[in-house]
Amino acid sequence: MDVTYAPIGVVRSPYGSPDDVPTPRDADVASRVELDEAYADGLDGLDEFSHVVVLAHLDGIEDSHLRARPPHADGVEVGVFASRSPHRPNPIAQSVVRLDDVDGTTLHVNGLDLVDGTPVLDVKPYVGGVDEADLTRGWLEDLEG
Amino acid sequence: MDVTYAPIGVVRSPYGSPDDVPTPRDADVASRVELDEAYADGLDGLDEFSHVVVLAHLDGIEDSHLRARPPHADGVEVGVFASRSPHRPNPIAQSVVRLDDVDGTTLHVNGLDLVDGTPVLDVKPYVGGVDEADLTRGWLEDLEG
Repeated sequence: MDVTYAPIGVVRSPYGSPDDVPTPRDADVASRVELDEAYADGLDGLDEFSHVVVLAHLDGIEDSHLRARPPHADGVEVGVFASRSPHRPNPIAQSVVRLDDVDGTTLHVNGLDLVDGTPVLDVKPYVGGVDEADLTRGWLEDLEG
Repeated sequence: MDVTYAPIGVVRSPYGSPDDVPTPRDADVASRVELDEAYADGLDGLDEFSHVVVLAHLDGIEDSHLRARPPHADGVEVGVFASRSPHRPNPIAQSVVRLDDVDGTTLHVNGLDLVDGTPVLDVKPYVGGVDEADLTRGWLEDLEG
Protein backbone atom coordinates (compact mmCIF):
# COMPACT_ATOMS: atom_id res chain seq x y z
CA MET A 1 0.00 0.00 0.00
CA ASP A 2 1.61 3.22 -1.17
CA VAL A 3 1.82 6.35 0.95
CA THR A 4 1.19 9.78 -0.55
CA TYR A 5 2.25 13.15 0.84
CA ALA A 6 1.72 16.71 -0.32
CA PRO A 7 4.81 18.89 0.21
CA ILE A 8 4.31 21.71 2.72
CA GLY A 9 6.98 23.99 1.27
CA VAL A 10 10.27 24.24 -0.55
CA VAL A 11 13.99 24.66 0.17
CA ARG A 12 15.78 27.81 -1.00
CA SER A 13 19.53 27.18 -0.93
CA PRO A 14 22.68 28.19 -2.81
CA TYR A 15 23.01 24.64 -4.18
CA GLY A 16 21.78 24.27 -7.76
CA SER A 17 22.44 20.54 -8.10
CA PRO A 18 23.38 17.58 -5.87
CA ASP A 19 27.02 17.95 -6.95
CA ASP A 20 27.10 21.42 -5.38
CA VAL A 21 26.27 20.15 -1.88
CA PRO A 22 29.51 19.69 0.10
CA THR A 23 30.32 16.52 2.08
CA PRO A 24 30.50 16.91 5.00
CA ARG A 25 27.95 19.67 4.92
CA ASP A 26 28.95 23.27 5.62
CA ALA A 27 27.28 24.28 8.89
CA ASP A 28 27.68 27.97 8.09
CA VAL A 29 25.84 28.06 4.78
CA ALA A 30 22.47 29.80 5.08
CA SER A 31 19.34 28.40 3.45
CA ARG A 32 15.64 29.00 3.80
CA VAL A 33 12.76 26.61 4.31
CA GLU A 34 9.74 28.38 2.82
CA LEU A 35 6.48 26.83 3.98
CA ASP A 36 3.12 27.53 2.37
CA GLU A 37 1.39 30.45 4.08
CA ALA A 38 -1.51 28.20 5.06
CA TYR A 39 0.79 26.71 7.72
CA ALA A 40 1.54 29.96 9.57
CA ASP A 41 -0.31 28.90 12.75
CA GLY A 42 1.62 25.64 12.78
CA LEU A 43 4.92 27.45 13.40
CA ASP A 44 3.95 29.13 16.67
CA GLY A 45 6.67 28.49 19.24
CA LEU A 46 9.20 26.99 16.83
CA ASP A 47 11.40 30.10 16.99
CA GLU A 48 12.27 29.21 20.59
CA PHE A 49 14.09 26.09 19.46
CA SER A 50 17.73 26.36 18.39
CA HIS A 51 17.57 23.45 15.95
CA VAL A 52 14.96 21.78 13.77
CA VAL A 53 14.64 18.49 11.89
CA VAL A 54 13.78 18.97 8.22
CA LEU A 55 12.33 16.06 6.26
CA ALA A 56 12.38 16.57 2.51
CA HIS A 57 11.80 14.67 -0.71
CA LEU A 58 14.93 14.30 -2.84
CA ASP A 59 13.10 14.93 -6.09
CA GLY A 60 16.24 14.98 -8.21
CA ILE A 61 17.01 11.33 -7.37
CA GLU A 62 15.72 8.97 -10.01
CA ASP A 63 17.42 5.69 -9.14
CA SER A 64 18.00 3.70 -5.98
CA HIS A 65 20.70 1.17 -5.20
CA LEU A 66 21.02 -1.33 -2.38
CA ARG A 67 24.74 -0.58 -2.06
CA ALA A 68 26.40 2.77 -1.52
CA ARG A 69 29.92 4.16 -1.76
CA PRO A 70 29.92 7.18 0.55
CA PRO A 71 32.00 10.15 -0.68
CA HIS A 72 35.49 10.61 0.81
CA ALA A 73 35.30 7.14 2.33
CA ASP A 74 38.26 5.43 0.66
CA GLY A 75 36.14 3.15 -1.47
CA VAL A 76 34.12 1.78 1.44
CA GLU A 77 30.99 0.04 0.16
CA VAL A 78 28.06 -0.58 2.48
CA GLY A 79 24.35 -1.25 2.32
CA VAL A 80 22.28 1.82 1.48
CA PHE A 81 20.55 1.69 4.89
CA ALA A 82 24.00 1.90 6.54
CA SER A 83 24.61 5.12 4.60
CA ARG A 84 23.03 8.51 4.07
CA SER A 85 23.09 8.04 0.29
CA PRO A 86 20.21 9.81 -1.45
CA HIS A 87 19.83 6.83 -3.80
CA ARG A 88 17.55 4.94 -1.40
CA PRO A 89 14.25 3.14 -1.99
CA ASN A 90 12.33 6.10 -0.55
CA PRO A 91 14.51 9.19 -1.11
CA ILE A 92 13.62 11.07 2.08
CA ALA A 93 16.28 13.43 3.42
CA GLN A 94 16.52 14.00 7.17
CA SER A 95 18.61 17.01 8.21
CA VAL A 96 19.13 18.57 11.63
CA VAL A 97 19.88 22.26 11.14
CA ARG A 98 20.40 25.38 13.23
CA LEU A 99 17.39 27.68 13.21
CA ASP A 100 18.30 31.36 13.12
CA ASP A 101 14.92 32.97 12.62
CA VAL A 102 11.31 32.37 11.73
CA ASP A 103 9.87 35.16 9.58
CA GLY A 104 6.24 34.51 8.72
CA THR A 105 6.34 31.03 7.19
CA THR A 106 10.02 31.28 6.23
CA LEU A 107 12.60 29.46 8.35
CA HIS A 108 16.14 30.81 8.15
CA VAL A 109 18.49 27.90 8.81
CA ASN A 110 22.17 27.02 8.63
CA GLY A 111 23.81 23.81 7.46
CA LEU A 112 21.00 22.46 5.33
CA ASP A 113 22.45 20.04 2.77
CA LEU A 114 19.64 20.23 0.22
CA VAL A 115 19.39 21.50 -3.32
CA ASP A 116 17.41 24.65 -4.15
CA GLY A 117 13.82 23.74 -4.93
CA THR A 118 13.70 20.51 -2.89
CA PRO A 119 10.12 19.85 -1.67
CA VAL A 120 9.77 19.86 2.13
CA LEU A 121 7.59 17.22 3.80
CA ASP A 122 7.84 18.06 7.49
CA VAL A 123 9.56 20.23 10.08
CA LYS A 124 9.94 19.10 13.69
CA PRO A 125 11.64 20.61 16.73
CA TYR A 126 14.98 18.97 17.52
CA VAL A 127 14.77 17.91 21.16
CA GLY A 128 18.05 16.08 21.74
CA GLY A 129 20.19 13.19 20.59
CA VAL A 130 22.23 10.30 21.86
CA ASP A 131 25.05 10.78 24.36
CA GLU A 132 28.41 10.54 22.59
CA ALA A 133 29.49 7.97 25.20
CA ASP A 134 26.72 5.62 24.05
CA LEU A 135 27.38 6.03 20.34
CA THR A 136 29.08 3.71 17.84
CA ARG A 137 29.20 4.80 14.24
CA GLY A 138 30.37 1.79 12.19
CA TRP A 139 32.40 2.48 9.07
CA LEU A 140 32.53 6.19 9.87
CA GLU A 141 34.67 5.45 12.92
CA ASP A 142 36.98 3.20 10.92
CA LEU A 143 37.61 6.12 8.57
CA GLU A 144 38.37 8.51 11.40
CA GLY A 145 40.88 6.03 12.80
CA MET B 1 2.87 17.73 -6.85
CA ASP B 2 2.31 14.79 -4.55
CA VAL B 3 5.05 12.43 -3.45
CA THR B 4 4.45 8.67 -3.29
CA TYR B 5 6.45 6.10 -1.34
CA ALA B 6 6.22 2.33 -1.04
CA PRO B 7 6.87 1.14 2.55
CA ILE B 8 10.00 -1.00 2.89
CA GLY B 9 8.83 -2.89 5.97
CA VAL B 10 6.76 -2.83 9.11
CA VAL B 11 7.13 -2.20 12.85
CA ARG B 12 6.52 -5.04 15.31
CA SER B 13 6.02 -3.57 18.78
CA PRO B 14 4.09 -4.29 21.97
CA TYR B 15 1.90 -1.21 21.33
CA GLY B 16 -1.51 -2.04 19.88
CA SER B 17 -2.77 1.54 19.58
CA PRO B 18 -1.40 5.09 19.83
CA ASP B 19 -2.78 5.32 23.39
CA ASP B 20 -0.47 2.47 24.42
CA VAL B 21 2.72 4.35 23.48
CA PRO B 22 4.17 6.02 26.60
CA THR B 23 5.26 9.68 26.70
CA PRO B 24 8.14 10.08 27.12
CA ARG B 25 8.99 6.88 25.36
CA ASP B 26 10.39 3.89 27.26
CA ALA B 27 13.97 3.40 26.08
CA ASP B 28 14.02 -0.19 27.34
CA VAL B 29 11.04 -1.53 25.41
CA ALA B 30 12.10 -3.87 22.60
CA SER B 31 10.56 -3.68 19.14
CA ARG B 32 11.44 -4.99 15.73
CA VAL B 33 11.72 -3.29 12.37
CA GLU B 34 11.03 -6.01 9.81
CA LEU B 35 12.15 -5.01 6.34
CA ASP B 36 11.14 -6.83 3.17
CA GLU B 37 13.65 -9.55 2.33
CA ALA B 38 14.42 -7.86 -0.98
CA TYR B 39 16.39 -5.26 1.02
CA ALA B 40 18.84 -7.67 2.65
CA ASP B 41 21.87 -6.31 0.76
CA GLY B 42 20.95 -2.80 1.83
CA LEU B 43 21.57 -3.58 5.49
CA ASP B 44 25.23 -4.57 5.14
CA GLY B 45 27.27 -2.70 7.76
CA LEU B 46 24.31 -1.32 9.70
CA ASP B 47 24.92 -3.70 12.61
CA GLU B 48 28.11 -1.77 13.43
CA PHE B 49 26.09 1.31 14.34
CA SER B 50 24.69 1.61 17.87
CA HIS B 51 21.69 3.72 16.86
CA VAL B 52 19.49 4.15 13.81
CA VAL B 53 16.96 6.69 12.57
CA VAL B 54 13.63 5.13 11.66
CA LEU B 55 11.22 7.04 9.41
CA ALA B 56 7.71 5.62 9.40
CA HIS B 57 4.23 6.48 8.18
CA LEU B 58 1.73 7.01 11.00
CA ASP B 59 -1.07 5.19 9.22
CA GLY B 60 -3.46 5.33 12.15
CA ILE B 61 -3.58 9.13 12.03
CA GLU B 62 -6.53 10.42 10.04
CA ASP B 63 -6.63 14.10 10.92
CA SER B 64 -4.10 16.90 11.15
CA HIS B 65 -4.23 20.10 13.17
CA LEU B 66 -2.11 23.24 13.00
CA ARG B 67 -2.07 23.46 16.81
CA ALA B 68 -0.94 20.82 19.28
CA ARG B 69 -1.26 20.29 23.02
CA PRO B 70 1.66 18.01 23.90
CA PRO B 71 0.94 15.38 26.58
CA HIS B 72 2.10 16.10 30.14
CA ALA B 73 2.78 19.73 29.17
CA ASP B 74 0.45 21.59 31.53
CA GLY B 75 -1.91 22.70 28.77
CA VAL B 76 0.82 24.27 26.64
CA GLU B 77 -0.48 24.88 23.12
CA VAL B 78 1.97 25.36 20.25
CA GLY B 79 2.08 25.09 16.48
CA VAL B 80 2.19 21.53 15.23
CA PHE B 81 5.66 22.09 13.71
CA ALA B 82 6.92 23.11 17.16
CA SER B 83 5.71 19.74 18.46
CA ARG B 84 6.16 16.05 17.75
CA SER B 85 2.38 15.56 17.50
CA PRO B 86 1.43 12.79 15.07
CA HIS B 87 -1.48 14.91 13.83
CA ARG B 88 0.67 16.77 11.28
CA PRO B 89 0.06 17.57 7.61
CA ASN B 90 2.35 14.69 6.56
CA PRO B 91 2.27 12.15 9.42
CA ILE B 92 5.89 10.98 9.21
CA ALA B 93 7.43 9.69 12.44
CA GLN B 94 11.15 10.14 13.01
CA SER B 95 12.61 8.07 15.85
CA VAL B 96 16.23 7.57 16.92
CA VAL B 97 16.51 4.16 18.55
CA ARG B 98 19.20 1.86 19.93
CA LEU B 99 20.05 -1.00 17.59
CA ASP B 100 20.71 -4.28 19.39
CA ASP B 101 20.98 -6.68 16.49
CA VAL B 102 20.39 -7.18 12.80
CA ASP B 103 19.12 -10.68 11.99
CA GLY B 104 18.54 -11.08 8.27
CA THR B 105 16.24 -8.18 7.43
CA THR B 106 14.95 -7.82 10.99
CA LEU B 107 16.30 -4.99 13.15
CA HIS B 108 16.02 -5.50 16.89
CA VAL B 109 15.71 -2.06 18.47
CA ASN B 110 14.92 -0.43 21.80
CA GLY B 111 12.88 2.67 22.53
CA LEU B 112 10.81 2.77 19.37
CA ASP B 113 7.62 4.75 20.02
CA LEU B 114 5.53 3.28 17.22
CA VAL B 115 2.42 1.13 17.11
CA ASP B 116 2.58 -2.49 15.93
CA GLY B 117 2.00 -2.65 12.18
CA THR B 118 3.27 0.87 11.38
CA PRO B 119 4.68 0.97 7.81
CA VAL B 120 8.40 1.84 7.67
CA LEU B 121 9.65 4.24 4.99
CA ASP B 122 13.38 4.43 5.65
CA VAL B 123 16.19 3.43 7.99
CA LYS B 124 19.38 5.49 8.27
CA PRO B 125 22.47 5.22 10.47
CA TYR B 126 22.47 7.72 13.32
CA VAL B 127 25.76 9.58 13.05
CA GLY B 128 25.54 12.21 15.78
CA GLY B 129 23.54 15.13 17.05
CA VAL B 130 23.86 18.64 18.38
CA ASP B 131 26.06 19.45 21.38
CA GLU B 132 23.90 20.01 24.47
CA ALA B 133 25.71 23.31 25.00
CA ASP B 134 24.37 24.61 21.68
CA LEU B 135 20.82 23.45 22.21
CA THR B 136 17.69 25.41 23.14
CA ARG B 137 14.44 23.51 23.33
CA GLY B 138 11.63 26.09 23.61
CA TRP B 139 8.52 25.14 25.57
CA LEU B 140 10.14 21.87 26.68
CA GLU B 141 12.68 23.82 28.74
CA ASP B 142 9.98 25.97 30.29
CA LEU B 143 8.30 22.78 31.51
CA GLU B 144 11.50 21.42 32.99
CA GLY B 145 11.99 24.68 34.84
